[in-house]
Amino acid sequence: MTQNNSFLNEYNGVALSPILFLKRAVLSHGDYPAVIDNGQQWTWQQYASRCANIAIALQQMGITKGSVVSALLPNIHELLELHYAVPLSGGILNALSIRTDSATLNFIFEQVNPQILVIDKDYLALLEGVSFKKPIAIILVGNTILKKIHAENSTDIPQPIFNHEIFGHEIIQYESLITRYPAETLHFHPIDEQEAISINVTSGTSGHPKIVVYSHRGTYLNAISNILDWDMPKRPSYLWTLPMFHCNGWCFPWTIAARAGTHICIRKFDAAEAIQLMQKHQVTHYCGAPIVHYSLGREAQKQGISFSNNVYGFIAGAPPTEKMFSLLATAGITATHVYGLTETYGPVVVCEDKHDWEALSTTEIVLKQMRQGIVSNLQGEVSVIDEKSGLAVPSDGQSIGEIAIRGNIVAAYGPASHVSSDTTSQWFFTGDLAVIDSDGYIKIIDRKKDIIISGGENISSLELENALSSYPGVLAVAIVAKPDEYWGEVPHAFIELDHQISITEQELDDYICTVVARYKRPKGYTFTSLPRNANGKLLKEALRKLAKNLCPTPKSGPESAKK
Amino acid sequence: MTQNNSFLNEYNGVALSPILFLKRAVLSHGDYPAVIDNGQQWTWQQYASRCANIAIALQQMGITKGSVVSALLPNIHELLELHYAVPLSGGILNALSIRTDSATLNFIFEQVNPQILVIDKDYLALLEGVSFKKPIAIILVGNTILKKIHAENSTDIPQPIFNHEIFGHEIIQYESLITRYPAETLHFHPIDEQEAISINVTSGTSGHPKIVVYSHRGTYLNAISNILDWDMPKRPSYLWTLPMFHCNGWCFPWTIAARAGTHICIRKFDAAEAIQLMQKHQVTHYCGAPIVHYSLGREAQKQGISFSNNVYGFIAGAPPTEKMFSLLATAGITATHVYGLTETYGPVVVCEDKHDWEALSTTEIVLKQMRQGIVSNLQGEVSVIDEKSGLAVPSDGQSIGEIAIRGNIVAAYGPASHVSSDTTSQWFFTGDLAVIDSDGYIKIIDRKKDIIISGGENISSLELENALSSYPGVLAVAIVAKPDEYWGEVPHAFIELDHQISITEQELDDYICTVVARYKRPKGYTFTSLPRNANGKLLKEALRKLAKNLCPTPKSGPESAKK
Repeated sequence: MTQNNSFLNEYNGVALSPILFLKRAVLSHGDYPAVIDNGQQWTWQQYASRCANIAIALQQMGITKGSVVSALLPNIHELLELHYAVPLSGGILNALSIRTDSATLNFIFEQVNPQILVIDKDYLALLEGVSFKKPIAIILVGNTILKKIHAENSTDIPQPIFNHEIFGHEIIQYESLITRYPAETLHFHPIDEQEAISINVTSGTSGHPKIVVYSHRGTYLNAISNILDWDMPKRPSYLWTLPMFHCNGWCFPWTIAARAGTHICIRKFDAAEAIQLMQKHQVTHYCGAPIVHYSLGREAQKQGISFSNNVYGFIAGAPPTEKMFSLLATAGITATHVYGLTETYGPVVVCEDKHDWEALSTTEIVLKQMRQGIVSNLQGEVSVIDEKSGLAVPSDGQSIGEIAIRGNIVAAYGPASHVSSDTTSQWFFTGDLAVIDSDGYIKIIDRKKDIIISGGENISSLELENALSSYPGVLAVAIVAKPDEYWGEVPHAFIELDHQISITEQELDDYICTVVARYKRPKGYTFTSLPRNANGKLLKEALRKLAKNLCPTPKSGPESAKK
Repeated sequence: MTQNNSFLNEYNGVALSPILFLKRAVLSHGDYPAVIDNGQQWTWQQYASRCANIAIALQQMGITKGSVVSALLPNIHELLELHYAVPLSGGILNALSIRTDSATLNFIFEQVNPQILVIDKDYLALLEGVSFKKPIAIILVGNTILKKIHAENSTDIPQPIFNHEIFGHEIIQYESLITRYPAETLHFHPIDEQEAISINVTSGTSGHPKIVVYSHRGTYLNAISNILDWDMPKRPSYLWTLPMFHCNGWCFPWTIAARAGTHICIRKFDAAEAIQLMQKHQVTHYCGAPIVHYSLGREAQKQGISFSNNVYGFIAGAPPTEKMFSLLATAGITATHVYGLTETYGPVVVCEDKHDWEALSTTEIVLKQMRQGIVSNLQGEVSVIDEKSGLAVPSDGQSIGEIAIRGNIVAAYGPASHVSSDTTSQWFFTGDLAVIDSDGYIKIIDRKKDIIISGGENISSLELENALSSYPGVLAVAIVAKPDEYWGEVPHAFIELDHQISITEQELDDYICTVVARYKRPKGYTFTSLPRNANGKLLKEALRKLAKNLCPTPKSGPESAKK
């Protein structure tokens, strides 16, 4: 028999799409709770019906293949519904950060050109400075905000603050859409699995955000990969501590459907509320930046709580420390370090425990678990590429290269983005510098743009941050390059302290010299709370500007090298 | 933004292929046992090396894109290696039943035209009646069988029985290939995921077997679907009780790689040996026909063994009975009923427990678990289609239709097969008649060709088989249509008894009339051991021939209806 590429019959090819997960969840566990939000609850059957109703309404409002529906919503059930309603309608979901500003919104809307915007009442004010190229339909979630417009108004009836005559857009209540077109049957467009299901926006710690496009195939595979990375059993209870607008919540709106689990919504992260929900709904899984895990761990400690069921947390954004692992373990939480980018649909590198770590001490295990790890289950390949040779660096834990990824869970760039990746080499370059350990696990040394070149030597901001983070009372650290006449750049430390503790610059300087080479030590310290973006990532660009404007540090110049 | 189908860059598209699983297993658990076979053991690193070495050797022997490598091997590590070595070489694996005959082999070889045959020494005799169209290279597994060819031979040196001058083919020892081309680097052909990875042959209970083709994409997805269907955690211990030549062992050679688990080989199924291996290697998962599970359960009972670790078994081929579930539960085995065909890469319908069954009695649960179930996690869709309307039957547990499947885990037919499916309707029709229960679960009524039409009434052979199976002392039952002058057809029962127990026809007749409608009861009984094919399926066609030649049963004719 010779090779035959065209044996795909009509009955043996179905587009890979997360929509398949919803169909199966209804079949397998239709009457099991799908979503719990602020005391309300919907089964998989009810959730699927609502998604279909919204999809029909979106079609009636003009959404068709390739139309974009933007959403400015917190972690509420309506945003979970849009993760299915928009693809069901044929459209593309564009979930936006609620912590964004009008200027950024203007930039994004210009690029993605949405036909409809779904917005929560609390974020209407963000629209004030936004100008749309063409009229846009606005779907409002929550009760319309009311105000008394005139004291002299004889009837004194409150009027909507949001005047569609000003904005010139149609305004519709989200909830009214559920029953608006009851008799309609959804017109389901056939899907090509490479088609876009969503448009996301990089967090953009500096400059314009990048527009990235996720496909049905990519989200399907990442949703499953999440299950495999985590050994997530059927019917998990998933708490929404991760912003859903961030990489479509790492694809977990679809992962939980694939497992017929239960979404527990949380409108605005609050550690005490999260702990309460975890107990009440026997939460088994959640994700977040280190700050989320830290807050949960501390709150559990404060309340003397240790979960008796198995609770698993994915940590991304920065490596967890030994302190963090220990804090979470005490609360009954098993934490796993994962790594990814908006361009990779969320985490695609996972620090999976190896079977032979069981024989190690806790400290040794943690040192291994702090690394980024290996390629996730259904991503293709992750490598660390030497800039000069274009080949993988040796697995020696020393040679530095840039993390590069290829596979089915790498997004395409939208029209407005700067395609920084070298597509001819078939790798997506992440901008993160790393080494490969002898066991094949990857460990990040620094962001390419964060590394500090001082007197010709590379100094890893991350190494200093990790070292200083372990000092008692230090909550968070950001090390940035400060321009220096003599050294070119010197490291400057921004330190966030536990407010009950007081630490001096001298103490930290004494300490850091015991754990890193003397020439690497920060030449100055600033004690402050650290600026973060919506995803909890430190805004180093802002700190670099701050550092630049600080007066020259006394420790600079050749004298400091001798000290 | 308008829809853009062509955004797939080079770095964000990788063919879905089980080969990716092997690469990751080496990375994540390279020094963990991959295969244990008859006291020997190989880690994932060692297994992958052997697979690559064999692949290089196959390429050196002329295997390239689309070449077929046939294998006639029992459940040994060499066959596991071929599941990776052949795709790595660019070839297509054709694993053949070791319980086949020369005539069938001739038919298959004519269709698939293999370039190489890998054969175990124990099955060489099967080749005696086989004629190849062109010379074929033969790779021999196991020590060459020796015989003394002449007593008068002065040196008395044993000579190989297998004389390649007779067969005219090159003969190479499998093990010698591992080191034959050590310096070569594997030339890895890029894969199109729709390309063939293997060719399988339906069990063919009657007539010529059908040739079906599995793709890289299909096997990749089914391998993952197995994990999800079973909630199979990382590093399972999998016992090879299922013939690996049957649907590529339901894709488990690839599933276990995807989980970096351990394959436990078993050359020829023997319940006592299986139990011993299960204890020794802490087996967590195994698959098989009911007879395999029954033998294991009985053996465990005999030895007074109940496994303390969790052991999970997939049962396919026929629905498990309450007796079976109970026997397995006593042994510490959780059994799940699954359903599929060679054309669907093995099981693609799974009787997943629903959350609300927990409140039911054991008997009620078992009645639900005996059904075929719902579509597996990554198959597309399963339906029961009414012959006349072409639409799904209502979910009433009554309306009979034919099970139809579509999705990514449906094979293509090879050149020689009769494409019985109606591809214009986009469904693969299975030939199994079923109903859909109110909870959406499918229950098979009978094979389309097994249903008995007696006096114009449909009688399900399966209903009678299930009823009689529950009679104490009855091991297995086959009901077939026996031609009858008056009724057209009447049901005839072939009964396999526990050899320690004696049961009369009268006893069974009295019993059956208490559990099924009188007109349905078998009109005759034959006590015998039942013929089965290699996969444990009853060979009803052979029994139909037997029944046809039996003398007319005394219970036939109008009198029997009145009795």
